[in-house]
Amino acid sequence: MLKPIGNRVVIKKIEQEQTTKSGIVLTDSAKEKSNEGEVVAVGSGQLLDNGSRVEPEVKEGDKVVFQEYAGTEVKQGDDKYLILSEADILAVIQ
Amino acid sequence: MLKPIGNRVVIKKIEQEQTTKSGIVLTDSAKEKSNEGEVVAVGSGQLLDNGSRVEPEVKEGDKVVFQEYAGTEVKQGDDKYLILSEADILAVIQ
Amino acid sequence: MLKPIGNRVVIKKIEQEQTTKSGIVLTDSAKEKSNEGEVVAVGSGQLLDNGSRVEPEVKEGDKVVFQEYAGTEVKQGDDKYLILSEADILAVIQ
Amino acid sequence: MLKPIGNRVVIKKIEQEQTTKSGIVLTDSAKEKSNEGEVVAVGSGQLLDNGSRVEPEVKEGDKVVFQEYAGTEVKQGDDKYLILSEADILAVIQ
Amino acid sequence: MLKPIGNRVVIKKIEQEQTTKSGIVLTDSAKEKSNEGEVVAVGSGQLLDNGSRVEPEVKEGDKVVFQEYAGTEVKQGDDKYLILSEADILAVIQ
Amino acid sequence: MLKPIGNRVVIKKIEQEQTTKSGIVLTDSAKEKSNEGEVVAVGSGQLLDNGSRVEPEVKEGDKVVFQEYAGTEVKQGDDKYLILSEADILAVIQ
Amino acid sequence: MLKPIGNRVVIKKIEQEQTTKSGIVLTDSAKEKSNEGEVVAVGSGQLLDNGSRVEPEVKEGDKVVFQEYAGTEVKQGDDKYLILSEADILAVIQ
Repeated sequence: MLKPIGNRVVIKKIEQEQTTKSGIVLTDSAKEKSNEGEVVAVGSGQLLDNGSRVEPEVKEGDKVVFQEYAGTEVKQGDDKYLILSEADILAVIQ
Repeated sequence: MLKPIGNRVVIKKIEQEQTTKSGIVLTDSAKEKSNEGEVVAVGSGQLLDNGSRVEPEVKEGDKVVFQEYAGTEVKQGDDKYLILSEADILAVIQ
Repeated sequence: MLKPIGNRVVIKKIEQEQTTKSGIVLTDSAKEKSNEGEVVAVGSGQLLDNGSRVEPEVKEGDKVVFQEYAGTEVKQGDDKYLILSEADILAVIQ
Repeated sequence: MLKPIGNRVVIKKIEQEQTTKSGIVLTDSAKEKSNEGEVVAVGSGQLLDNGSRVEPEVKEGDKVVFQEYAGTEVKQGDDKYLILSEADILAVIQ
Repeated sequence: MLKPIGNRVVIKKIEQEQTTKSGIVLTDSAKEKSNEGEVVAVGSGQLLDNGSRVEPEVKEGDKVVFQEYAGTEVKQGDDKYLILSEADILAVIQ
Repeated sequence: MLKPIGNRVVIKKIEQEQTTKSGIVLTDSAKEKSNEGEVVAVGSGQLLDNGSRVEPEVKEGDKVVFQEYAGTEVKQGDDKYLILSEADILAVIQ
Repeated sequence: MLKPIGNRVVIKKIEQEQTTKSGIVLTDSAKEKSNEGEVVAVGSGQLLDNGSRVEPEVKEGDKVVFQEYAGTEVKQGDDKYLILSEADILAVIQ
């Protein structure tokens, strides 16, 4: 299991085909360039000047759209995850 | 439905022809480069140093002019949306 | 009508000929490069760290000189406006 | 008359010949590149995070040395002024 | 022994083979480019504007994934360590 | 006399030969590139967010070493001065 | 003697051979590129927004590892020192 640090979020990317069911079709159909995924884990949140943390606006299980090319890819066993900062998440798909 | 995060806003772009009715004609008539649109959803607002949020100055239904080339395009079903940060919105068209 | 957001200001550019009457002659007489104009609308003002807004120093009707190449041009009907940030305004012409 | 905005200052450039009387000779004798001038008007001062303004350290009539290439030139009638930010002023010549 | 300063962390890199046991396989199998390691020492933590320190989120013995190319390599006797800033650590492997 | 503004300091450069007496020999013996000098005048000090000033750590008469290429040269009569910001001063030579 | 200003530290570089005794061997054996040294003097510490100073984490006599290429070299008599900012120091060698 990956426990992200600070304002980071761990996401499992959703490839193109699945997205049509949930209604989101990425403007570019290349598998690799999907910028949609499901939140797997969230960190402690962004650190403020006064030392307190900001509760992340996304939670485990949320489907989200994020900035293309954001984050770092990590493989755990057969699973591939993307670790990015919350600021790279554009919106939650409701 | 897209729920934008933080200071982001979801906009549905208005192409050139419609703009003449509302009086705004973009200086460049190319369809793609229209920088006018209608606000579809607003986020929780910009985060301040003290952790509070700033109420967005735009609301659902507002017609707005925004910086060219700003934001990320996302397709949902047949609809195309632009997710940009509130700071990229120049003015509301009243 | 354009209602600017935050620290933005809407300006109607004043071309070269008129400026000689008011005494301001831009060092470069090209029509396009005039950096003088009249304030048409002001936004809510610059946002401070504590969430309050700073009252803009310019008001509707002021004649101002601004940084060259600043702002974004928008046409509304036959009128051409420039939307720029207050920080790009150099001085008020009294 | 030009009323500068915020932390800006309006200066009337002093060309090379006059400077020898006051003792300041710019290391490069080219007329254009003089970086000495007299303060004609000061703005409301630099804005702080808490919204208050900092009293400018220069006042009308002060002779000052400023960073080369700083500011924007504006002609008013036959007079040529330089509008620059107070941070570009290096020292007052006493 | 290396005592890191401020928000820095000392890490002992874990090469590719060992990672398969703990489940983490780096997407690129090159030995050199492993971005997984064990925390050997943590500094006093990030300094805030008010002068207080933020307790580091990682501790000695944690297995972590970090940004590629981050940090500076230092050899102590036969051991090779990486000194990087806590902000370059993406997640703890639990 | 030059009265520096804000966090600026006026320095009279000390050329290479004199430096050997005081023990400081610049690693590069070129006359022009000396980065040692004597403080001639200090400004009001660095401005903080809350509007107060920080007392400069150097005073008139101090011999100092400063960053190479820092500051702006100004001639006053036959004297040549360097106006730089206090942050460019590395150390006082005691 | 060199008294560093603000958050600066004066270091005497330790060349490669000596380092093996203390256990630290720089990954690159070139004499010039050693990034290990002994602290000779510390400044008043980093300045915070509220005007107070942060006590430096290193003290005279500490052996430290620092960022390569950091700082400015100064010769005093036959001794060569490096003046760098505390933020460039990675760790204390205990």
